[in-house]
Amino acid sequence: MKKFMDKDFLLTTKTAKELYRRGAEKTPIFDWHCHLSPKEIYENKQPADIAELWLSGDHYKWRVMRSCGISEEYITGQKSGYEKFKAFAASLPYCIGNPMYHWTHLELQRYFGVETPLSEKTADEIYQKCNEKIKAGGFTPRELIEKSNVACVCTTDDPADTLEYHGLLRKEKDFKCRVLPAFRPDKALGLELPTFIPWITAMEKAVRREIHTFAELKAALLERMDWFGENGCCASDHAFTYVPYAPATDSEIEKIFKKGLIGGTLSTAELNKYRTALMLFLGAEYARRGWVMELHMGPMRNNNRKMFARLGPDTGFDSIDDHEIAQGLSGFMDALEVKGNLPKTVLFCLNPKDNYVLGTMLGNFQSSEVPSKIQFGSAWWFNDNYDGMREQMKALSNLGVLGKFVGMVTDSRSFLSYPRHEYFRRILCELIGDLVEEGKYPNDLEFLSKVTADISYYNAAKYFGIE
Amino acid sequence: MKKFMDKDFLLTTKTAKELYRRGAEKTPIFDWHCHLSPKEIYENKQPADIAELWLSGDHYKWRVMRSCGISEEYITGQKSGYEKFKAFAASLPYCIGNPMYHWTHLELQRYFGVETPLSEKTADEIYQKCNEKIKAGGFTPRELIEKSNVACVCTTDDPADTLEYHGLLRKEKDFKCRVLPAFRPDKALGLELPTFIPWITAMEKAVRREIHTFAELKAALLERMDWFGENGCCASDHAFTYVPYAPATDSEIEKIFKKGLIGGTLSTAELNKYRTALMLFLGAEYARRGWVMELHMGPMRNNNRKMFARLGPDTGFDSIDDHEIAQGLSGFMDALEVKGNLPKTVLFCLNPKDNYVLGTMLGNFQSSEVPSKIQFGSAWWFNDNYDGMREQMKALSNLGVLGKFVGMVTDSRSFLSYPRHEYFRRILCELIGDLVEEGKYPNDLEFLSKVTADISYYNAAKYFGIE
Amino acid sequence: MKKFMDKDFLLTTKTAKELYRRGAEKTPIFDWHCHLSPKEIYENKQPADIAELWLSGDHYKWRVMRSCGISEEYITGQKSGYEKFKAFAASLPYCIGNPMYHWTHLELQRYFGVETPLSEKTADEIYQKCNEKIKAGGFTPRELIEKSNVACVCTTDDPADTLEYHGLLRKEKDFKCRVLPAFRPDKALGLELPTFIPWITAMEKAVRREIHTFAELKAALLERMDWFGENGCCASDHAFTYVPYAPATDSEIEKIFKKGLIGGTLSTAELNKYRTALMLFLGAEYARRGWVMELHMGPMRNNNRKMFARLGPDTGFDSIDDHEIAQGLSGFMDALEVKGNLPKTVLFCLNPKDNYVLGTMLGNFQSSEVPSKIQFGSAWWFNDNYDGMREQMKALSNLGVLGKFVGMVTDSRSFLSYPRHEYFRRILCELIGDLVEEGKYPNDLEFLSKVTADISYYNAAKYFGIE
Repeated sequence: MKKFMDKDFLLTTKTAKELYRRGAEKTPIFDWHCHLSPKEIYENKQPADIAELWLSGDHYKWRVMRSCGISEEYITGQKSGYEKFKAFAASLPYCIGNPMYHWTHLELQRYFGVETPLSEKTADEIYQKCNEKIKAGGFTPRELIEKSNVACVCTTDDPADTLEYHGLLRKEKDFKCRVLPAFRPDKALGLELPTFIPWITAMEKAVRREIHTFAELKAALLERMDWFGENGCCASDHAFTYVPYAPATDSEIEKIFKKGLIGGTLSTAELNKYRTALMLFLGAEYARRGWVMELHMGPMRNNNRKMFARLGPDTGFDSIDDHEIAQGLSGFMDALEVKGNLPKTVLFCLNPKDNYVLGTMLGNFQSSEVPSKIQFGSAWWFNDNYDGMREQMKALSNLGVLGKFVGMVTDSRSFLSYPRHEYFRRILCELIGDLVEEGKYPNDLEFLSKVTADISYYNAAKYFGIE
Repeated sequence: MKKFMDKDFLLTTKTAKELYRRGAEKTPIFDWHCHLSPKEIYENKQPADIAELWLSGDHYKWRVMRSCGISEEYITGQKSGYEKFKAFAASLPYCIGNPMYHWTHLELQRYFGVETPLSEKTADEIYQKCNEKIKAGGFTPRELIEKSNVACVCTTDDPADTLEYHGLLRKEKDFKCRVLPAFRPDKALGLELPTFIPWITAMEKAVRREIHTFAELKAALLERMDWFGENGCCASDHAFTYVPYAPATDSEIEKIFKKGLIGGTLSTAELNKYRTALMLFLGAEYARRGWVMELHMGPMRNNNRKMFARLGPDTGFDSIDDHEIAQGLSGFMDALEVKGNLPKTVLFCLNPKDNYVLGTMLGNFQSSEVPSKIQFGSAWWFNDNYDGMREQMKALSNLGVLGKFVGMVTDSRSFLSYPRHEYFRRILCELIGDLVEEGKYPNDLEFLSKVTADISYYNAAKYFGIE
Repeated sequence: MKKFMDKDFLLTTKTAKELYRRGAEKTPIFDWHCHLSPKEIYENKQPADIAELWLSGDHYKWRVMRSCGISEEYITGQKSGYEKFKAFAASLPYCIGNPMYHWTHLELQRYFGVETPLSEKTADEIYQKCNEKIKAGGFTPRELIEKSNVACVCTTDDPADTLEYHGLLRKEKDFKCRVLPAFRPDKALGLELPTFIPWITAMEKAVRREIHTFAELKAALLERMDWFGENGCCASDHAFTYVPYAPATDSEIEKIFKKGLIGGTLSTAELNKYRTALMLFLGAEYARRGWVMELHMGPMRNNNRKMFARLGPDTGFDSIDDHEIAQGLSGFMDALEVKGNLPKTVLFCLNPKDNYVLGTMLGNFQSSEVPSKIQFGSAWWFNDNYDGMREQMKALSNLGVLGKFVGMVTDSRSFLSYPRHEYFRRILCELIGDLVEEGKYPNDLEFLSKVTADISYYNAAKYFGIE
């Protein structure tokens, strides 16, 4: 029996251990897609306690607690941090096989030196120990980032954002981690949503002129892309249930845009045309700038209207959609490619049924610009667990070239989430180690430890051009 | 090499064995969804022989035989029980890796003391031995149920059913197993089917008045739900290819209902509206009564018209559909939830591509009423095998809280099917045992053996409220 | 640690090794679906070098190279064979876990006696050694086929094909392998494609009369089927994104056909009606002749228009579609079955999400004509890898009868691809070996080695009737 989450956690073979020690363990982190707040990084406040750090905004933990039948008072309600922590601790032991179990204990081990499993029984002792550690210092955002050996992060930023805090952070010469903006124009694509008109207003403010047409919107976006570029941006990000491909004429798009701007009702066909037009424009711009286009596909969001009314979005009421994705995505990528406008692209799916669709889509559009120009994004959100990561990497191995993979991102709002890179790297080393031990790949540790370091960091650094 | 299906079958680690011995082996069975006939339980007849017990109604075995090229005469035709048994025995060895292979041998071992693998060669000897055992007694429905340590079963009953045999069985004080009805209004939902009008007639008889409107149907269903409630019902069950969500006005529904009542042709859109309206009504009623709503999604039934004409439904000609299910199911559940009408719900899928859709849907609607109010049903029908059960439990582990799972049901028509609970429990213990042995969960056998007992029985007993 | 790809490659247990030695290793090959050129087999030319053998037409290798960022010059361009070989060798080590890694080394070991892993470093040495071997002889198509113990292959032939080379090959009495044509009327189904009208012209030439109506097309196809039959044909093959089922009247079909014949624009609904009508006709004919109908479902082809314009089809720009397939396929098969016209059928899916749909579809239409009349085709194309083959066989095991499986095909254009049968057989033996070693199947090596030989060759030989 292996010990619970000891130094050889997930490293089931001698080869896996060797690969991890030589290739992945000490390699820096480039977290090229996350949801950290640049303002929080800049302000660099000391957290109040472990309850705030863990439970004030983590919808993964909230879901676990709700699934255990914990009352909302203890989740997002008025109960004290201590009471919330206790309720979480009492829930956790039932999460057998859940990534939350491992994330929690990796964080306890790496940041707090706590080796005891968290449960109702041990909650008080651990609560006290963590809070003493926090009080002793070293838990501000920047301290946590530096302690975690993070070389660079890309945040997620609205086109209308001033990027003020990115600018301020660049002047903080003592802070070793680069904090780059990433361009996330979701609100531009959400023409049918109540967020659209307020967002246009924000954009008008950002570009200091009015926006009445789609052409004007594009011009405004261009200007913002220039600004993002000046601030070091090398990536964009897009959230889709499915990527549409519905070509239309400029005048059709202008009509649809106008309708959206006055809050008119738009059909799915109209929205798909609008989104296609906007994405073709943006994709070509990304290509011109050498930015990476990230496409996240598959969520079905805000399923519970009652809780949405109470808590808003991103509070743990999202799940996985099952729309067909192959035809639209292929049509969209081809439309860019045929004009020479296809940027470096990372494809993420939330529904694991799409692993093989994406894994083979890559191969349709590779080129000699850069190794694996089209990337299969690491196991995302609900797939960000042991099985999901293995499945994603096995799909990529079978269908593409694992050695050119740009690897892991946290996609997280938490400054304590970096052990997820460690979790990923251990799984990567186990997977490659298995192949070697089973006689499926030669025992060339020198080459393979270089490859694991590449997948852990260097491939992404080259691909995004941050070196 | 492990011995073939010995006492440690599927228990591959020391921890798995320990968990099975301490937590799951002797825990009673609550088979909360099955297709047993309450009449047969009441009448409690001695079976003629092993051929009758095994081959007179089991479409799983029929499919295996048909797949081996056995003629229908030996399956549902005029051949003798002995000849049918021989044909089945000759087919079985080719079913390498099929759950039928394990079910058959579990039944031979547990009920007949037969340890020899069944094949053409051993068929005569085993046929004789089983029939001697049967003749010696102990093989009536009630004896088999009690021998199998079954505390409670929920049958599957039409709303028009009198529940006469449930009433009679309650008076049989010597019979230790509770036999509860479950409300299955499939025929109410099948407005377009030839079964609809005869079913309305049966309902009219049951409520002793005529049914001309949807409102009258709802009133009749209410009355039947009251009657089911008086008979101890705590669960409903619904079969869907996909759960629709298509809201409509009352007057629309009345029009659609009238059309159905005269055998008019109904569009898919109309049927979806009707089913949505009926399910919203039923769901709210289940919530009010504290009943569990079971939703079974994904079959494509009666694919072979030739054989349907000859043998009718449920004879082995069903397979797996692949419709999208996420949007409809989410819309339906949210429509109940937003009015406070969402009952405890168990979601079953037949297509394993839906495991992650359901596994994440749960989290959208959990509450503090009861731990894991929304449940992911155990691997169903074509997934009821070693791999399918592991996949369902791994999906639940990764996406929800395994420790709160309500576990296994046989979904069976056979009085010999209880070893499937044993099969499930062994797989459960192996899965949790693996996590402990691999250092992925602490070695806390006291807690984990309690959890395996909970998943085997106690979680369901509390969830359905039969305690 | 197992040695890299030694004699026990993939044979992880004693039972697996024993099964392979006794049942699968020396059994001949029946490659009942491939894309070999009968002309090339007849002409039997000596290949120039390893670069020509490996890189002149293998889109799998091209994709690997493109994914590594190799320039098209080194793939399909003007660079020398040596330079292309070096570029491939430099790419290969990054293909960790990719089937190409194993295929390449199986070919190096079996045909060239090279045991060294191929990489940039070893490329020159291996290039030289392979070319010496080739020059020494034994590498013509027929020599490779005979050396590989191939008893029979079915090529893939257009209905308009004269089958001239099949006729010539039959007269080559020294060549031990039978080369049978297979009927592949894809161009007949592609009514909307630019290939249709030229194909009609070719058919008119083949039957020496004009084709103006659907009835005339059917008559022409009948005549060609007779000709294929005379040439030993026992199989047909069809490529679908999804199999449609849209019944229509004869006069509707004639109208649609006429529209197609003048290059008119056809709706999806019209195309589905046309394809349904043609397939119902063809299916019935196959049944009458005892031919096997192979249905390949799921590709999305020619996704990259830029590269299609440059290189044409089948050059590495295809991927996996995700259309629903269950309803159409069921309707189509039932429509044949209800009239007694359903032929022996092999169902292949490209999207692994469809494994369970197909695995259960089989059971709807089995019969006593032949064991497992409806077959689940082996893991195809993008699934033709270790994981994909295991998944397909596990799905078949769980849902059908593994022992009656007709096994592997190369689906290949290469005369060096036969080690893929070996790869498949090793995985088969490992899978069955695991079941025995884990106590899930009795340790009956005599029976199981017969079954592995059956799945490797004899089941298919009986099923296709080539014995």
